[in-house]
Amino acid sequence: MHHFHYRNGRLHAEDVAIDDIVQAVGSPVYIYSTATLTRHFQVFADSLKEFGGLVCFAVKSNGNTAVIRTLARLGAGADVVSGGELMVARAAGVPAERIIFSGVGKSRAEMELALDEGIHQINVESVPELDLLNEVALARGVKAPVALRVNPDVGAGGHAKITTGKKENKFGIDWTAAPAAYRHACSLPGLDVKGVAVHIGSQIADLQPFEDAFLRVRDLVLMLRADGISLSRIDLGGGLGVPYEDGNDIPPPPPEYAAIVRSTLGDLGCSISAEPGRLIAGNAGLLVSEVMFIKEGSTRTFAIVDAAMNDLVRPAMYEAFHGIIPVAEPVPGEATIGYDVVGPVCETGDTFARQRPLPPLKAGDLIAFKTAGAYGATMSSQYNARPLVPEVLVDGNRFAVVRRRPTFEEMRALEQVPEWLE
Amino acid sequence: MHHFHYRNGRLHAEDVAIDDIVQAVGSPVYIYSTATLTRHFQVFADSLKEFGGLVCFAVKSNGNTAVIRTLARLGAGADVVSGGELMVARAAGVPAERIIFSGVGKSRAEMELALDEGIHQINVESVPELDLLNEVALARGVKAPVALRVNPDVGAGGHAKITTGKKENKFGIDWTAAPAAYRHACSLPGLDVKGVAVHIGSQIADLQPFEDAFLRVRDLVLMLRADGISLSRIDLGGGLGVPYEDGNDIPPPPPEYAAIVRSTLGDLGCSISAEPGRLIAGNAGLLVSEVMFIKEGSTRTFAIVDAAMNDLVRPAMYEAFHGIIPVAEPVPGEATIGYDVVGPVCETGDTFARQRPLPPLKAGDLIAFKTAGAYGATMSSQYNARPLVPEVLVDGNRFAVVRRRPTFEEMRALEQVPEWLE
Repeated sequence: MHHFHYRNGRLHAEDVAIDDIVQAVGSPVYIYSTATLTRHFQVFADSLKEFGGLVCFAVKSNGNTAVIRTLARLGAGADVVSGGELMVARAAGVPAERIIFSGVGKSRAEMELALDEGIHQINVESVPELDLLNEVALARGVKAPVALRVNPDVGAGGHAKITTGKKENKFGIDWTAAPAAYRHACSLPGLDVKGVAVHIGSQIADLQPFEDAFLRVRDLVLMLRADGISLSRIDLGGGLGVPYEDGNDIPPPPPEYAAIVRSTLGDLGCSISAEPGRLIAGNAGLLVSEVMFIKEGSTRTFAIVDAAMNDLVRPAMYEAFHGIIPVAEPVPGEATIGYDVVGPVCETGDTFARQRPLPPLKAGDLIAFKTAGAYGATMSSQYNARPLVPEVLVDGNRFAVVRRRPTFEEMRALEQVPEWLE
Repeated sequence: MHHFHYRNGRLHAEDVAIDDIVQAVGSPVYIYSTATLTRHFQVFADSLKEFGGLVCFAVKSNGNTAVIRTLARLGAGADVVSGGELMVARAAGVPAERIIFSGVGKSRAEMELALDEGIHQINVESVPELDLLNEVALARGVKAPVALRVNPDVGAGGHAKITTGKKENKFGIDWTAAPAAYRHACSLPGLDVKGVAVHIGSQIADLQPFEDAFLRVRDLVLMLRADGISLSRIDLGGGLGVPYEDGNDIPPPPPEYAAIVRSTLGDLGCSISAEPGRLIAGNAGLLVSEVMFIKEGSTRTFAIVDAAMNDLVRPAMYEAFHGIIPVAEPVPGEATIGYDVVGPVCETGDTFARQRPLPPLKAGDLIAFKTAGAYGATMSSQYNARPLVPEVLVDGNRFAVVRRRPTFEEMRALEQVPEWLE
């Protein structure tokens, strides 16, 4: 469900024509839809409302301040994985008491920041991290509200590089070591042990791995309770995916996900929070790009576009599929051509799609990469000295540039030539 | 050959102790060695001197102004692939007449910039690009000095994402279509057809693919000459790799590469240029990082470090190997431990090495990723709201920060909240 549709032959974001935005802002450009962000958040939040926890937007999926503020106004909290993301969330207006700090490598400075801000919860991923957080909290005379992230050893979720719940990866505390880690955590005077956290990936199209993981969480909560350790919070992480390819890998709707939560964890008397990112922002964004050249190779036809792997790295990094549609509505029944859609960067990996059927394209045409609202702009770089792509937020019939394109001077502002080279 | 060695038990860059730099600048940090850059450039340039062309440093491999200026002072030209890189090269002091503009997707604005600056050569990769460049040059009343990049259909060079000379990829003009493309180019009044360019990859450890490609270039030059088209320049691209793993995949020394150039192309009466990047900068840089936590998993031990995939993406993107050494010299004969060396980013792909034998590590120890001078900082991003890693250049017993770490405010300077969210 999204709000990007053709109207009078032109692709629109809500009530704004995409080509009008490109006219004003240039190409390439990320375009986000407020209505889509809002709808995705509300459907998900409504389905989990009965469990009384937080719905924290995963800032790593889209770190734009305006996007986060849009969600914060709907009541979203923030799931952050660095001190920088914590500051972004605060600057976007997320109250500290709705922020959860996750991640395997928090520094002392980041822990201090989290405690000083008074955030809702710190998800701890290892015993040495428990010890350091205890030390930092004691030095500040506070108790750190913590959940232990446990690793349920459940394989799930898309590309091997983004699955996070198998025991051979770096995340969480091994299932079998969790009870001992909880006993240790409860012995530390600087910690207030609130709950358990689990996160098994961010592109999961099947309910079974969730059920498997949640049943393990249930077992752990009951086991700890029998052991005298009473947890009041469960954090389910993110996980529910988005359909990148029309008709394929369609994730279950949030109410079905909620039904699994209810049947596995609903009777434990714990508040239940979740940290969706991709689910909220993925389909709420397009990356729009202009065709620069059509190049006939001996074995294939290339559409060389002005967006590249530095702007949207998912195809190069994860072999990810993104739907591609022309901004001018195709003529019904028109024959398609199989294009290799590639960017200008000097790497073969800078290929968005191979042999993709598209209506005939020519230089100057605009195309849109779908499902680019999550892990798009947030992963972008200035590789090949290409400026960061601007981001635009649409709301009804209005739009605003929410991150502008840097100038050449701004791209080099951090550089300095040593005196021996002056 | 590089200038990173232990001295009195501490790893040094030339005459500067690495831990002194970290003390001053913080961790993680990229550290480059002037002596290594200089030596690599000079050995390569000397070996090709007899051919009378340019040695153009591939700016995409390391875009730092101070690094490029260091090389420019030695006589290096610049190989650029975007208008941004062209401006970086000029700002670093590379004369326009030593700049070659490569890449499959040059925009009209980039062509105008290249012509206005008066650069040495524009390498054109398709017939539509020839036509556009002709149009731009005519509008400015100049003739654009061009080489046609041909695709020799030679497979070579490292990961599939970075090999560039196979006919099914996007680069260059297909071998079989080259004569017709040359005839077309010579018919365009805005172009001055100077030469032929070829580039088959950037991590090649074997001379055979070079010989195969250069023989095809030879055939083309002779065929065109018989056809009345006389080329005066040959551009060999980059290609010669660096040893990422000690003792493995050691590329041939530049004099052996030069011998192949001589035997295949030496008698054609053309000047011969080359565009090394990785070869010059790869081994001239380290990425230094601090161990944050040692985490015992049930099946493996993780060293969680403060550098991540956003800082050095090659392992996540290309499954690339980087040597890892401790900054404190290991005790001779000490037993090693197999570590999974991982960063703090919430992706399994944020793994630098698996089961890597290293001396025992503890939190606070510094390690160095080797061969990080090329495609390191230049590909880095702010993913997870992590600030760009600073870059330091060492020269003998002095060092300077040549790109500093941004503040939180600088990281968000391009963002703006729309009025409806104020």
